Amino acid sequence: MATRLPDSEFDHRLEAVREKIREQGADAGVWFGATSIEYLTGFDHIQTERPVALAVTDERIEITVPRLEVERVEPNPRIDAVHHYFDYPGGKPIQVAVEMLSGLGAETVVADSDGAPGVMGYDGPALSKFVDVESQSWVNRMRWAKTDAEIDLIRESAKWGNLAHQYLADYTEPGAHPATVSQRASMDASRAMLDTLGDEYVPRTRGSGPAHAGYITGSQTALPHGHTANRRIEEGDVLVTGAAANVDGYHSELERTMFVGEPTDEQEHYFEVMLESQTIAIDALGPGVSLSYVDQQVWNYFEEQGVTDLAQHHVGHNIGMGGHEPPYIDRGWDDHVDDGDAEMEPGHVYTIEPGLYTDTYGYRHSDTVAVTENGTEMLTYFPRDLESNVITW
Amino acid sequence: MATRLPDSEFDHRLEAVREKIREQGADAGVWFGATSIEYLTGFDHIQTERPVALAVTDERIEITVPRLEVERVEPNPRIDAVHHYFDYPGGKPIQVAVEMLSGLGAETVVADSDGAPGVMGYDGPALSKFVDVESQSWVNRMRWAKTDAEIDLIRESAKWGNLAHQYLADYTEPGAHPATVSQRASMDASRAMLDTLGDEYVPRTRGSGPAHAGYITGSQTALPHGHTANRRIEEGDVLVTGAAANVDGYHSELERTMFVGEPTDEQEHYFEVMLESQTIAIDALGPGVSLSYVDQQVWNYFEEQGVTDLAQHHVGHNIGMGGHEPPYIDRGWDDHVDDGDAEMEPGHVYTIEPGLYTDTYGYRHSDTVAVTENGTEMLTYFPRDLESNVITW
Repeated sequence: MATRLPDSEFDHRLEAVREKIREQGADAGVWFGATSIEYLTGFDHIQTERPVALAVTDERIEITVPRLEVERVEPNPRIDAVHHYFDYPGGKPIQVAVEMLSGLGAETVVADSDGAPGVMGYDGPALSKFVDVESQSWVNRMRWAKTDAEIDLIRESAKWGNLAHQYLADYTEPGAHPATVSQRASMDASRAMLDTLGDEYVPRTRGSGPAHAGYITGSQTALPHGHTANRRIEEGDVLVTGAAANVDGYHSELERTMFVGEPTDEQEHYFEVMLESQTIAIDALGPGVSLSYVDQQVWNYFEEQGVTDLAQHHVGHNIGMGGHEPPYIDRGWDDHVDDGDAEMEPGHVYTIEPGLYTDTYGYRHSDTVAVTENGTEMLTYFPRDLESNVITW
Repeated sequence: MATRLPDSEFDHRLEAVREKIREQGADAGVWFGATSIEYLTGFDHIQTERPVALAVTDERIEITVPRLEVERVEPNPRIDAVHHYFDYPGGKPIQVAVEMLSGLGAETVVADSDGAPGVMGYDGPALSKFVDVESQSWVNRMRWAKTDAEIDLIRESAKWGNLAHQYLADYTEPGAHPATVSQRASMDASRAMLDTLGDEYVPRTRGSGPAHAGYITGSQTALPHGHTANRRIEEGDVLVTGAAANVDGYHSELERTMFVGEPTDEQEHYFEVMLESQTIAIDALGPGVSLSYVDQQVWNYFEEQGVTDLAQHHVGHNIGMGGHEPPYIDRGWDDHVDDGDAEMEPGHVYTIEPGLYTDTYGYRHSDTVAVTENGTEMLTYFPRDLESNVITW
């Protein structure tokens, strides 16, 4: 059961960035982004106005944190020294980070940003006021392709997202309230996940429960980013669901278009066109395939069906530690990147979610699909067909 | 019942930034930050790799959005024109925004950042490649002091946070699971809030339910940013709770240190020292009071009690649309800002949350307090005393 990233993953990641630091001829790599720091060290924290700075040299890994993170980071086996300031702004985080770099003999650094990001009102000096800084986004690029161990976690995430989604479908009926059904399904799936995984479950810092399912309903489905309306479910409603789970920081995405009772002929028509477009995209995926090509295949089908005016977004995006990650399956992707970055590679994990939005309702499934050496693997598995997505009660 | 910001608020906000644009001698103000765009126009959206750009001139307000936000923004009564690109990266968001600015005759702009922020992998060109850009953070600064209408929403938020917190306390008993108690309390409070407010409730784009309560338990409380452990509640546990609600985009913060059964003498001691430190801070607040002074008063008391080594953070922060906002109640605040910004002003709303963290447990309450013309108003009201925070079953 894959519920925790093995230590060897961090060894490989750190070796990779050390190689880049050497190539660049710099003394140290520096990261201020919480996700990148977690990716390299396994130390996860909530990014706030209190900056955290990670420094990696050939020999050592050191970190600067606010006082309130000290006990959380000290047990980390990869971090050799923890420096801290008391709080912001009195504690002068960048100055403490600069002293850390000075102790490491780092005069030229390559950093993910020139100082800490302006989160929650943080407003401090640029790092380049103190040391020579060049910029890099190595970790963001490394995250495009997942290892087998990372895909194992996304596969596990899909399992618990599926349970939350099943409960969501089970609890849905006319008269029920969308927010309540969502919270009840999320609660019951999270409970099952925690009790099943037991000590294998890796807790994360605060946030919503480990598994989640919810939906937008009725006319809000016509908006890809609609809200959960304060209105009870009615027979005839169209639902666009979403379900996921957090497994050691990795995510999957499962969405379904569902009907509360039998759909109308028009609803069935748009559902079937959407379903076929998703099948076309899933069939087109694979190693060496251009991302733009996949989006174009769906667009061609929409043109054939005369529904391009009902499309509002591209086919999908990479997913992993972040809910949306590049590369994006977009017709403009190949123009946006260097030649070598235009194609899908083994380890990329994509959401496949072409959608159609009429004046009254929206139609979108989303599945999470890994690109493998020889083809693809569907990680989400809730049935996609119409019959399985008609709710009866 | 205050559940929705009146239109007049937006008129005042827009007049204020237009005055600043004129003072600066610029043609337009530009904003890429989702919270600032919501503050100025009432249009709320999820900030992703698809940039949104708002332009304000003396005459007009225009916006550039991805295709999927068009129907959501078009009904906004303040926005005169909506421009869109299809998706990112194919749709060239910055180029569409630059065409919008060109149509407005805006050759010199003051922007909240030089191009859209690098959220979820967005990686586009600087705005200054196309027009003259100066930087501003006007909205962030305007948000320090809330109007009466904004404080009304935070007061309403405190009410529903209190209900979620009461349910959390009610459902807590040995053998219960923290995640499940949290989700059940959040579900029941959200249900009550939605049914009470009815059509007065302003729905927000997707996210967790309108009201939320949860906690960290046992040894995790020793970490200010601890996680919810996968371990059932036991008699003798210390809890540090947190409860809040989202009312038209505004938040409050309520936290309590609670005991599952009677506390030990040591636990009672630290609770009482924490409680007194919070009272000292609440009593010190007021218009014209230095923020650093308030933090220092608590520090002096901790010194007197010999517990400074158990403190891990400053007293609190401003709160409103963001969970953490400047100014921060921090001993270093006065050195960090210009003289005029060192003091509390009517309309500032602060969390007051000094904490003590021993090797075994943490002790922290948090209340939300508004600074008024003549003094302060406590917006959160769950009882703070020991007896009210001992859970029996």
